[in-house]
Amino acid sequence: MHALILGAAGMIGRRLVDALVAEGRVGGQPLTALTLLDVVAPAAPEGFTGPVRAEAADLSAPGIAEAAIRARPEVIFHLAAVVSGEAEADFDLGYRVNLDATRALFEAIRAAHAAEGYRPRVVFTSSLAVFGPPFPGIIPDDFSLRPATCYGTQKAMGELLLADYARRGFLDGIGIRLPTICVRPGKPNKAASGFFSGIIREPLAGQPAVLPVPDTVRHWFASPAAAVGFLTHAAGLDLARLGLRRNLTMPGVSATVAEEIEALRRAAGDAAVALIRCEPDERILRIVETWPEAFDPAAATELGFRADDSFDAIVARHVAEFHGG
Amino acid sequence: MHALILGAAGMIGRRLVDALVAEGRVGGQPLTALTLLDVVAPAAPEGFTGPVRAEAADLSAPGIAEAAIRARPEVIFHLAAVVSGEAEADFDLGYRVNLDATRALFEAIRAAHAAEGYRPRVVFTSSLAVFGPPFPGIIPDDFSLRPATCYGTQKAMGELLLADYARRGFLDGIGIRLPTICVRPGKPNKAASGFFSGIIREPLAGQPAVLPVPDTVRHWFASPAAAVGFLTHAAGLDLARLGLRRNLTMPGVSATVAEEIEALRRAAGDAAVALIRCEPDERILRIVETWPEAFDPAAATELGFRADDSFDAIVARHVAEFHGG
Repeated sequence: MHALILGAAGMIGRRLVDALVAEGRVGGQPLTALTLLDVVAPAAPEGFTGPVRAEAADLSAPGIAEAAIRARPEVIFHLAAVVSGEAEADFDLGYRVNLDATRALFEAIRAAHAAEGYRPRVVFTSSLAVFGPPFPGIIPDDFSLRPATCYGTQKAMGELLLADYARRGFLDGIGIRLPTICVRPGKPNKAASGFFSGIIREPLAGQPAVLPVPDTVRHWFASPAAAVGFLTHAAGLDLARLGLRRNLTMPGVSATVAEEIEALRRAAGDAAVALIRCEPDERILRIVETWPEAFDPAAATELGFRADDSFDAIVARHVAEFHGG
Repeated sequence: MHALILGAAGMIGRRLVDALVAEGRVGGQPLTALTLLDVVAPAAPEGFTGPVRAEAADLSAPGIAEAAIRARPEVIFHLAAVVSGEAEADFDLGYRVNLDATRALFEAIRAAHAAEGYRPRVVFTSSLAVFGPPFPGIIPDDFSLRPATCYGTQKAMGELLLADYARRGFLDGIGIRLPTICVRPGKPNKAASGFFSGIIREPLAGQPAVLPVPDTVRHWFASPAAAVGFLTHAAGLDLARLGLRRNLTMPGVSATVAEEIEALRRAAGDAAVALIRCEPDERILRIVETWPEAFDPAAATELGFRADDSFDAIVARHVAEFHGG
């Protein structure tokens, strides 16, 4: 099986490539070739002996989608996106990358389907951002698509396209709404959601961290490893039984900030927790208050998607990767 | 107020123009000018003394959206669409007209907003087709967008665009999900939904009608007059209180085919009912079984949208218009 990864240089994309290479399989078959694309050239993975094409490519530019699928990859992971803050700040860029490039990919696949019956598995990464307030306390699978951001709108439109192209048989698609990734590795950033990871990551590294919201704030999380597990699981599923429900909210861990902090305390003690400084930020609180707290991801759970066991497990995965266990 | 009607030559469009002219007002203000566009030139309305531009125009062609709003109409009714069967049969046409032309309109408005602060009221006609099975018996306002057709997908994507452009302040938009229109005037057609109107319209005219499904089939209806009432009401509402819920399921009459037939009997007697011939059609039944039966349109009802009082009222409106009361 030839796998194409769009957005292969991103945090999840790189981990997905590593996981596929380590497993040597994708969608239940041997992994025979890789095409890795991103706006910056992805690194070719170590330890993979099959052919690899790793290139910089802007999927929203003319002809790039057709070129991306020229070798007819059997599995396509579409992770390429402009993130939420950037899509809100640059309206045209967000629609071009998150909507038009996704449509260009699906249209290229449809043309190849019409010409030669090509029909790849497409795993599309969507987001909780397709949902907006007012929310029930626990959000069901059938909850309305009502985004509160351009990014969420573009992801919701991508979901609808995916489902329609799948219904028509042009591709065999599944959309995966990822929880907020935690603990996100790397440096602190200005994203409104950054503190959810920062208050774990920074104290574990002996660094101070700022908490801008009350510790009663609740949200929906998955570790980077769990996210990669969702993607690889999605590549091998029998999707016929999904019917029209081609886009699924992934399971996650619903935790309050206070529960995050107690998990940190169990992993690293009071000294680590003491590195968290409360600095209320009304702007961030107003954004975070529009985010969902918990889901009942019944459809995905029934299909075998598995979240982290607990927020302690999320912390433990980060510790194992970055602090030698 | 200058009103632009896109799709002004259609069944609802013509009635909307007549209603606006008869009322002499739109959105609570005097109606001062009309721009009427459709793929065939709409008739100029009688009895309107203000300036009228009535032209054939394909909104999906380059430059047409910009030209349509050149006079900066304060109220825009966007009814132009390729219907369900055609959008399914011609994939490219459906996306071009129902999605791309809608986006071109919104983009033209955004450009005028950026240049000069233009921000019209936009009333977008959507459809129950944004929903697909499995359904609960009564569908709530927060039910998932999960279309079962290309048409429903394109309408759902238009809803999402409308809400995003409204959230960003580029336009002041509201999406109106119309029930199935009944009694639809005109000749019998091949639409899967045609029989819902045909079994009333044809017997009232002394003609035979075919019923292809069991009389236990239930669906959600509004008369043409009620649909026009939704549109004119939407033009004058204060939308600030909608929040992110910019797209609303309209109230309707939930009726079974048996209830339709009893209303026909009360209006026109047993002789009319005897003109209905049962001819089960498995193909039509399979389509109709994927359609919703009833809604709880709480948000629209709270905003003052009003359905027909009963299926008898729906029949009476048709009789009054076509059979002299």
